[in-house]
Amino acid sequence: MFKKRINADKAKELFSGVIIPVSDPELLPIKDCDGRINAFDVVAGVDVPHYRRAAMDGFAVRASDTLGAGSNSPVILTAGTGVERGTCVMVHTGSPLPEGADAVVMVEDTVMHGDSVEVFTQVHPLKNVGEIGEDIQKGEVILKKGHRLRPCDIAVMASLGIRDIEVFRKPLVAIIPTGEELVPRGKESLKEGEIYETNGLMAALYIERWGGTPRLLDIVTDSPPRIKDAIISNLDADMIIISGGTSVGRRDYVPGIVESTGTLLVHGVGISPGKPTALGIINSKPVVCMPGYPVAGIVALYWFARPALRKLGNLPDEPDRIVRAVLSDKIASRAGYKTFARVKINNGKAIPLATSGAGILSSVSKADGFVIIPENIEGLSAGEEVDVVLIE
Amino acid sequence: MFKKRINADKAKELFSGVIIPVSDPELLPIKDCDGRINAFDVVAGVDVPHYRRAAMDGFAVRASDTLGAGSNSPVILTAGTGVERGTCVMVHTGSPLPEGADAVVMVEDTVMHGDSVEVFTQVHPLKNVGEIGEDIQKGEVILKKGHRLRPCDIAVMASLGIRDIEVFRKPLVAIIPTGEELVPRGKESLKEGEIYETNGLMAALYIERWGGTPRLLDIVTDSPPRIKDAIISNLDADMIIISGGTSVGRRDYVPGIVESTGTLLVHGVGISPGKPTALGIINSKPVVCMPGYPVAGIVALYWFARPALRKLGNLPDEPDRIVRAVLSDKIASRAGYKTFARVKINNGKAIPLATSGAGILSSVSKADGFVIIPENIEGLSAGEEVDVVLIE
Repeated sequence: MFKKRINADKAKELFSGVIIPVSDPELLPIKDCDGRINAFDVVAGVDVPHYRRAAMDGFAVRASDTLGAGSNSPVILTAGTGVERGTCVMVHTGSPLPEGADAVVMVEDTVMHGDSVEVFTQVHPLKNVGEIGEDIQKGEVILKKGHRLRPCDIAVMASLGIRDIEVFRKPLVAIIPTGEELVPRGKESLKEGEIYETNGLMAALYIERWGGTPRLLDIVTDSPPRIKDAIISNLDADMIIISGGTSVGRRDYVPGIVESTGTLLVHGVGISPGKPTALGIINSKPVVCMPGYPVAGIVALYWFARPALRKLGNLPDEPDRIVRAVLSDKIASRAGYKTFARVKINNGKAIPLATSGAGILSSVSKADGFVIIPENIEGLSAGEEVDVVLIE
Repeated sequence: MFKKRINADKAKELFSGVIIPVSDPELLPIKDCDGRINAFDVVAGVDVPHYRRAAMDGFAVRASDTLGAGSNSPVILTAGTGVERGTCVMVHTGSPLPEGADAVVMVEDTVMHGDSVEVFTQVHPLKNVGEIGEDIQKGEVILKKGHRLRPCDIAVMASLGIRDIEVFRKPLVAIIPTGEELVPRGKESLKEGEIYETNGLMAALYIERWGGTPRLLDIVTDSPPRIKDAIISNLDADMIIISGGTSVGRRDYVPGIVESTGTLLVHGVGISPGKPTALGIINSKPVVCMPGYPVAGIVALYWFARPALRKLGNLPDEPDRIVRAVLSDKIASRAGYKTFARVKINNGKAIPLATSGAGILSSVSKADGFVIIPENIEGLSAGEEVDVVLIE
C-alpha cells in the first residue's frame, strides 16, 4: 500500500529540502556558456572603454574654442591632425579623443570647406566624449555568482577580453526505465504484451532541455535485485529517475527498494495523474520514482524532477510560459488532488482533452498545456478564464 | 540620411512580408528532434496498443461470470492458465488479455485462497480492458506538419516504433560583423581605438537559442567592396545579419550597399534604441542591418531577427516570458518611438536602469528585461504596474 498520501506542494517542499546543489565548477570558453550558471563573481579586469573616445562622428575640439557659437554665428576652426587652440580633428564614433581635445562637436552641427570647419553649436567640456571606464570600471563585479548567462552577458564578457569562465557543472541525471513489458526502441516489431520504452527517452529529453545531462540506461526488468543494482551503480549521478514499478501492484518493487537502500520520503502524492509517484534519497542523492503510465510520468517530471534539477544545478526559477484562455467545456477534478488537466488551445479557447486514462500518451501529445486545478476546487466550468501552462 | 522613419510594427510587418519559409526537410533520429518542426504529417503505422490488454493488475474473467457479485456476496472462480466459464487468470497492467476473457477485475476487489479467487464486484464486458488502437489508431495523423516537437511528442513517436522523421532544416544565418575599430576576441590586448568584436558573437548565440544555425564570419573592415563581397559570398544562407555601419555617418556604408545590391526596405525605425536599423532583401534573402551600438543591436535582434527567423524556420510564435512588476521610478520615452526600457527586477519592483547610451552594453547585462512603451505614450510613472518581458 502507499504510505500516507501527501499534498503535492508539501511533497515538493519535502523533496527540495534534501537536495544539495552541485558546487563543482568547470572551465569553459565563454561562447559555450549560454544558459550556464556562473560559479563565481565575474570581475572586470580592464576599463571599458579603456581610452577616452568620441561618442559621435564629428570633430574633436577644445570646448572653450566653441564659446559663443550658434546656428547663425559659427565659430571657424581649422581641421588638422592635432587639437590645439583654433584647430580640430575629424573623429568617428569610438575613435580615441586626440590629445588636447576635451569635447566633440557632432558632424551635423558643422559645415566643412576645405580644411576650414564651421561649428554651429557651443559644446561644454566632455560633451560627446566617452570617459575611460564609463561603461565598466576595472574591478567591478559585472556578473554575480549564480547568474544564468545569456548571450548579452557573454557579449559583455567578450568586451572585457574574457575568454573562459568557470560555471557550475550541469547535474548528471541517471534515468532507469523498468518494466518487463518494455522493449528497446529499434526492435523491429512487437509481440503481444510488449511495448517500446518511451518514458526514459522522454525524461532524458526533458532533463536536457531543463539544464541537466541525462544518462539514459538500458531497460531493467521487474526484478528487485536488478533494480537495486542499477540504482547502486548510478549513485555517481546527481539525481536518479526511475520510471515504472511505483504503484502498489505485485510487481511494483521500486518504492520498497528505495526504502531498503536509502530513505523513502514520499509514496503517494495528491496529484492527478501521478498519485503513485515516490520520492526518496539514497546516499544523499535524490531519487524520483515516476509512474510508468506516461501521462502520470510527465506530471511527476514537471512537478518534482524539474524543480529538483533547478536546485541541483543552481538554476534560477523561470516563470512558465502561460496563455490565458476561456474553457470551452467543464473540467472535472479530484478533490484533495492537484489536478493537471490537459487542454488544447484554439482561438483563445482551452479545449479539455479526454482524460480517460493516464496511460494514454497521445493525450499529452495532443495537448498544448495543462490547466492546474488546486486541491480545494472541484472542477471548473465552461466559460471560466484559466491560465494554461504550456507544455514544453 | 535615413529613408523616412518607419513605425516599428509596420517595419516588422513589411519585413515579414518578404520572407519565404525554408521548405527543405532533413531526416533525423527522433531523439535529435527536440524543438524541431515536422516537415510532414506523422502518421501512425500501427495501433497502440497493438493487442487487447489488461488496464489494471487483477484477474482476467468472463464478465458474465461476475454477475451478482458484491461486497458481501463474492463469486468464486478458479485461477488457472486459461479463461473459460468459472475460471480466471492473473494479469498485470499491460498484459495481453487471455483468450476467452472480456474483462478484468481489479486485484483490490478480490481475495485469493490457493487457486480459488473470491470476486467482490460485478464487472461489465471490457471493464479494465484496453482495446486495440485505444490510444492511437493505425493510419491516424498523430503529429501535424509544422508542429514543434517536444519530448512528449517524441515519446509518442517512439511508442509507434518510429525511429527517424523528416523535420524542416534549420535556417542558416550568416552574421557579418563590420567596423574598423573591431578586433577579434582572443587578441591579447587592445590599443587605443580598438574594441573586441561582441555583437556578432551575441547575435550568433541568440540565433542558436532561437532555433537557427549561425555562421559567424570574420570581422569585415568599413570598406564598401569588402562588405559587399561578404554579403554576396553568403547568399547561400537563409538570412544575413550585418552588425555596424548602419547609421548616417561617413563610414556607415551598409544600407547603401544593401540598396545597390538588392532592395533596401527600411532604413530608420521608430524604435528606441535601434533607430538606425536597416532591413532589406538581396536575392530573396532577408538582410537585417543591426546597429553597432550593442543595446540598439539587441533590440534590433529581438524586434526583427527573431520573428524573421521564426518565419524562416516555420517556428511557431512563443509567448514571451513575462513578469508583472511595479515601476520603482518613472521611465522617459520618446514620442513616436517604441521604447525598450531596460529594468532590473527586485522584490516585485521594476527598477529602471540608466539609459545614458545605447553603447552601454553593461546596461543590458544588468537588466532582467524590457518594459516596452508604445509610441503614443510619453513615459511611465513610478508606481505603475508593467509587464516586463524577460531578456533571454
